[in-house]
Amino acid sequence: MREAQSTITIPFHDIDVMRIAWHGHYVKYLEIARCALFDDIGYNFPEMEASGYAWPVIDLHIRYAYPLNFQQKIIVKAKVVEWENRLKIKYEILDEASGKRLTKASTVQVAVNIESKEMLFESPPILLEKLGVLE
Amino acid sequence: MREAQSTITIPFHDIDVMRIAWHGHYVKYLEIARCALFDDIGYNFPEMEASGYAWPVIDLHIRYAYPLNFQQKIIVKAKVVEWENRLKIKYEILDEASGKRLTKASTVQVAVNIESKEMLFESPPILLEKLGVLE
Amino acid sequence: MREAQSTITIPFHDIDVMRIAWHGHYVKYLEIARCALFDDIGYNFPEMEASGYAWPVIDLHIRYAYPLNFQQKIIVKAKVVEWENRLKIKYEILDEASGKRLTKASTVQVAVNIESKEMLFESPPILLEKLGVLE
Amino acid sequence: MREAQSTITIPFHDIDVMRIAWHGHYVKYLEIARCALFDDIGYNFPEMEASGYAWPVIDLHIRYAYPLNFQQKIIVKAKVVEWENRLKIKYEILDEASGKRLTKASTVQVAVNIESKEMLFESPPILLEKLGVLE
Repeated sequence: MREAQSTITIPFHDIDVMRIAWHGHYVKYLEIARCALFDDIGYNFPEMEASGYAWPVIDLHIRYAYPLNFQQKIIVKAKVVEWENRLKIKYEILDEASGKRLTKASTVQVAVNIESKEMLFESPPILLEKLGVLE
Repeated sequence: MREAQSTITIPFHDIDVMRIAWHGHYVKYLEIARCALFDDIGYNFPEMEASGYAWPVIDLHIRYAYPLNFQQKIIVKAKVVEWENRLKIKYEILDEASGKRLTKASTVQVAVNIESKEMLFESPPILLEKLGVLE
Repeated sequence: MREAQSTITIPFHDIDVMRIAWHGHYVKYLEIARCALFDDIGYNFPEMEASGYAWPVIDLHIRYAYPLNFQQKIIVKAKVVEWENRLKIKYEILDEASGKRLTKASTVQVAVNIESKEMLFESPPILLEKLGVLE
Repeated sequence: MREAQSTITIPFHDIDVMRIAWHGHYVKYLEIARCALFDDIGYNFPEMEASGYAWPVIDLHIRYAYPLNFQQKIIVKAKVVEWENRLKIKYEILDEASGKRLTKASTVQVAVNIESKEMLFESPPILLEKLGVLE
C-alpha cells in the first residue's frame, strides 16, 4: 500500500485572528502530501493528464483535533486506502517535535476521461499499474 | 431553524489548471455563507469574542458533485442543524442560473472558552439565545 | 478611458493575526476589479484566450495607506492608463462608508502570443478595439 | 547587511489556468523568505509583538520576468537594504536548477506602536539591535 509524507512549516499568512492556522488552509497541506505520494508512484498531474485522465476530488473530510500554530513544523502522512473504483487517500497530520497526531483527513478522487468528460466507475489500469497493484 | 445564503461569483484566482475552481477554495465559499448567517443572528466573530468564546471548526465535510467554472454565479445556503452540544451547519451550493445543486457540505464547531482554553461539551446559553431556541 | 469598480466585503479568512487583511490578499481585490473592467469591454480571460493572447501581469505595485478590517466594505476602482505597448491599470481602494482612499496600486500586463510564447512589444489591435481607442 | 533565503517548490494549488503560478501567490513566497530572515535575526512576529511593535507592509513591488511552473524549485533571497526610518527588503527569485533570476521584488515595512497605534517615523532601537547595526 502506497504511502508518502511531507514536512511543512506553518507560514504567517495561514494564521488567523485566533492565532491558529485557518481551517481552510489544511486542504493545501493535504495536497502537498498527496502530490508527494503521486510523485513517488510517477503519476502526478502531468502524467495524469498525459494518460488522458483528470482526477478531481469528489469528497473531502477533515477532523481537526488540535490547532496548528505559527511556525509549527508538521508531518503530513498520505496513504492510499482504496483504488479499484475510486482513489481514496487517508491523511494524518502530526506535530514533528512530539509525534502527536493533530488532525485526520481523507479525500476521494475519481478518474474523469479528459476528452469525453465522462466519469469512470472503475479506475483505469494506469492507476493500478502505477500503484503496483496490477495482478 | 436558522438559515442564510450568499451569492458568489467564482474569481479567476480560484480556477486551477483543469479550468475549474480548486477544491480547497470551497472552504472560503462556505465561510462566507456561514458568516452571513452569523451576521443575521448577531453572533459573528466580534460578538463571539466579546462573549468569551471562540468557535473553531472541528469537522469539515464537502461532497463535490459538479465543478464550478470561472465567473459562474453560485448561491451558498447555510443552515443550522444542531446547536445543543456543538454547532453543526449544513451547506448547499447551487448554480444561480439553473438552481441545480452542485455541492453539499457540513461543518461542526464547538465553543472554546477563550480564557481557559477549555472546550465546552454543551453550547453556552449565548448561542441558544442568539439562535432564538432558548426555552 | 476605461474604468470599472467592484464592491468587496473583507472576509474572515483574509484577516491575519494583527486583525487586518493580510497584505497579499489585496492582489485578489485588484483582480476582481480588473476582471469587472475586462467584462465591461468584452475582453476577459475567455476572450483573451480566443484572441490568441495571454496577458500575464509583469509588474505589480501596491501602496498601503490604511489597513482593512473584518467585514469592511471597500470599493476597488480600476482604470486603464496605458495600452499602446502594454496594458497598465491603476487602482484605488476606498472605504465604502466614508469614501476615504485606503490604498493605491497598479499592474502592468503584456500580450503574449499563446502559440509562439512570444511577448509582444506592441499591444495587438484586438485590445485597442475592445478599449474603443482604435483610430 | 542581513540576508536569508528559502527554497520553495511551487504547489499545484498555486497554478492557474495559464499553467503558471498565479501572480498573487508570489506574495507568500516573499513572506516565507522574509520570515526566514526575521528568524535569523531573532525578530520574527512573536518577538516583534513582544517588543510592542507591529511592522505592517506599506509598499509592495514585484517585477515578474519569467513565469513559475508546477513543481519548479525556486530560491527566494531576501536582503535588508534600509532600516533607519523604515525596513526595506529586496528579493530575488531564482530557479534552483539553473540559478536564473526569474523575479525581483521589494517590500517596505514601518513600525507601528501596538498600544498607541501610532506609526514611527524612525525605526525603534530594537530593530537596529537585532540587525546588529546599532552603533
